[in-house]
Amino acid sequence: MDSQQFLESKPVVIAITSLILFSVLSFSIETLPDLSKDTLNFFHYAEIAVVSVFSLEYLFRLYAAEKRWWFVFSFYGIVDLLAILPFYMSTGLDLRTLRLLRILRLARLLKLVRYGAAIKRFVLALTIAKEELIIYFIATLVMLYLTSVGIYYFEHAVQPEKYRSIFDCLWWAVSTLTTVGYGDIYPITTGGRLFTFGILILGLGLIAVPTGIISSALSEALRRSTDHIDD
Amino acid sequence: MDSQQFLESKPVVIAITSLILFSVLSFSIETLPDLSKDTLNFFHYAEIAVVSVFSLEYLFRLYAAEKRWWFVFSFYGIVDLLAILPFYMSTGLDLRTLRLLRILRLARLLKLVRYGAAIKRFVLALTIAKEELIIYFIATLVMLYLTSVGIYYFEHAVQPEKYRSIFDCLWWAVSTLTTVGYGDIYPITTGGRLFTFGILILGLGLIAVPTGIISSALSEALRRSTDHIDD
Amino acid sequence: MDSQQFLESKPVVIAITSLILFSVLSFSIETLPDLSKDTLNFFHYAEIAVVSVFSLEYLFRLYAAEKRWWFVFSFYGIVDLLAILPFYMSTGLDLRTLRLLRILRLARLLKLVRYGAAIKRFVLALTIAKEELIIYFIATLVMLYLTSVGIYYFEHAVQPEKYRSIFDCLWWAVSTLTTVGYGDIYPITTGGRLFTFGILILGLGLIAVPTGIISSALSEALRRSTDHIDD
Amino acid sequence: MDSQQFLESKPVVIAITSLILFSVLSFSIETLPDLSKDTLNFFHYAEIAVVSVFSLEYLFRLYAAEKRWWFVFSFYGIVDLLAILPFYMSTGLDLRTLRLLRILRLARLLKLVRYGAAIKRFVLALTIAKEELIIYFIATLVMLYLTSVGIYYFEHAVQPEKYRSIFDCLWWAVSTLTTVGYGDIYPITTGGRLFTFGILILGLGLIAVPTGIISSALSEALRRSTDHIDD
Repeated sequence: MDSQQFLESKPVVIAITSLILFSVLSFSIETLPDLSKDTLNFFHYAEIAVVSVFSLEYLFRLYAAEKRWWFVFSFYGIVDLLAILPFYMSTGLDLRTLRLLRILRLARLLKLVRYGAAIKRFVLALTIAKEELIIYFIATLVMLYLTSVGIYYFEHAVQPEKYRSIFDCLWWAVSTLTTVGYGDIYPITTGGRLFTFGILILGLGLIAVPTGIISSALSEALRRSTDHIDD
Repeated sequence: MDSQQFLESKPVVIAITSLILFSVLSFSIETLPDLSKDTLNFFHYAEIAVVSVFSLEYLFRLYAAEKRWWFVFSFYGIVDLLAILPFYMSTGLDLRTLRLLRILRLARLLKLVRYGAAIKRFVLALTIAKEELIIYFIATLVMLYLTSVGIYYFEHAVQPEKYRSIFDCLWWAVSTLTTVGYGDIYPITTGGRLFTFGILILGLGLIAVPTGIISSALSEALRRSTDHIDD
Repeated sequence: MDSQQFLESKPVVIAITSLILFSVLSFSIETLPDLSKDTLNFFHYAEIAVVSVFSLEYLFRLYAAEKRWWFVFSFYGIVDLLAILPFYMSTGLDLRTLRLLRILRLARLLKLVRYGAAIKRFVLALTIAKEELIIYFIATLVMLYLTSVGIYYFEHAVQPEKYRSIFDCLWWAVSTLTTVGYGDIYPITTGGRLFTFGILILGLGLIAVPTGIISSALSEALRRSTDHIDD
Repeated sequence: MDSQQFLESKPVVIAITSLILFSVLSFSIETLPDLSKDTLNFFHYAEIAVVSVFSLEYLFRLYAAEKRWWFVFSFYGIVDLLAILPFYMSTGLDLRTLRLLRILRLARLLKLVRYGAAIKRFVLALTIAKEELIIYFIATLVMLYLTSVGIYYFEHAVQPEKYRSIFDCLWWAVSTLTTVGYGDIYPITTGGRLFTFGILILGLGLIAVPTGIISSALSEALRRSTDHIDD
């Protein structure tokens, strides 16, 4: 068994993934208020242990790589480095900055992506649907903006403290057209409600169109990959 | 008519299904506050009657089965047993525990699944889409987590009592990205709103992708089963 | 031009449709509080005029029909009759009952359905997807019920006035799984939130599955009707 | 390089698009309350600069067009003119009217549409699905109206200040069936909740159907355009 096979063997993958998940969980728990000093200490030492294992893993991957410089600047090489670098860099900086840099540790989650197979069909579907998705994206932004301007003229006069500017209206437009509807801001005038009525009927398309695009692209990708197998 | 045919005849299926539905409904009504003693008594005797019928049915199914041990440990054998066991087991325990065990009675609902045909196409579609669905599931969890961390840095300082920790942020992320939007927790800072804006535009994909996966898989399953008929 | 052609000519269709829409609109306006006596009078006479036209239309349709008894008991025959009958029946009854019967007038909207063509493809798609939709419908009801029972055990103890019984929990389950999320009732315990988290991730499927079913069935219906044209 | 090529060259397209976006952004910022006089002055002069460039562009496009009158009355010709006309027209009118006319400036966003390619497939898909979408649109309006009438009879008596008339009920029906659910208005009676329950189960179809239509039409459009390439 060579070194590459060792890194991709089941026990190693499970161990690394577990460490990543533990690291993410401990990061979350540390944000809880009123933690005891013992708990914080435990997480401090656990952090040192995790970073040590990841550092050894990084060096081993670097040693095992055929083209070493290529690995260092590859996507996973950079992600692996970013997962451990904040820890070493934090020594000279104050604790607050450390906390902000620590967010990069989450990039470790991206490593999970390495272990997957059917992503190719996703990528093919995205390639097929790329142009449609970009047009859709621009059309959505335009629609959101026009909706914001529309509601501004209907609601600004009646609710000046809620619909203060186009930017507040944009917040309303996003939370409405995505059908989240927090309820912190909603129209009360008859005109504003009729406007929202029309926009929402159209807005159903906002959800329907990307689904249709992705669905038809996935169908096409599935068909092509199945045809490939048949040959 | 042999015993298996008898169990799958229309009147028997309807009678059993009705009893299951009655049992579920009575379970629901018993949770209503301020029920009269007479009502509770009625449900108590109804419960005895239902369990008696189900017990007889279980014994008959056991007697009718070709391989008896196989039936006992089959999916439906276990479900059938779980539907009556809590009643007999509750005698020696206190009433509170009985109430908690009674939840298993709902497993009877699963028996309804026995009577269906086009489930095969669903299963075929799920088999086709399995890998995509798993990748999507993991990607969703990662996205939810990253969203939680993001909103934590934007909103924690301003709304410390609502966005207390990553776990509260996760609750917000779930209720926002699934577009439920209860309105109990929402961003108020400009940064947090812009972040939510971006996340929601992406989040439309959260709904679009599984729909696309299931839709294309069902199309493929339909095509395959139709081709099968043509041959 | 025979009588059937006359009834399906453009001016007649537009006139009848306009009268239906006017009738529906006037019904809506009459629910507004604080209407003046003049307005109510106007709508009273308008009502008499509309019913007169519809009565004449009904008699003409009856006269023009090839098989008269068949028309009377056909779908549109009954709808046409129901659109005028409440007016004549109301004379002997009190006004409150009249108001409740008037709701049948809305059945006139169904007449609009008569004028459409591509409904056939919808019907074909529904025929293809019928079994899947029924299974999905039952599965949804079961899932909603199990979700209600689950949240009852998590939230009843903490919020007894909101999650009073399984029925209140069912209301929560419906408004949550359909992603409406009014915000009148939501979980506050950690267990209840984790439960909701899991249910919502599954619940995305609640929206994805029918879309997938309808989408694949419509594709199939479109394919079949196109093949039909090619032959 | 002729004049048409010049107008469609990358630097020109980017410059014009940037000016449009700047113009839209400045329009938004001007709606912010409490802006300093300097800021307003800056936007005033920026507005003059933007309109000057757009005016020159319009004249150049007019000069470059093969058929000049055709350009003036073409879609883009009118949009281009509407983007600059409000500025020149505002001199004689009061400032309030100017502000309302300025909304037409947003039509510049439509110019962005000029630069796109895969829109053809969208248009083909819309052509395929046109009839289905119209039927769906009418069916949705009918369903929304019937839902409004239904909830009126359930909730009007209990919440007369929220469900005042059919029009208020229509607002509720729209915000509920599109699953926005602001939470400003929701049923509290058992009947109203059961009614909403049934409507929402059906209402999932409200989202599922257009997605299915668009999805199957896009699949068909993709298939046709691919077949075209194969030939």
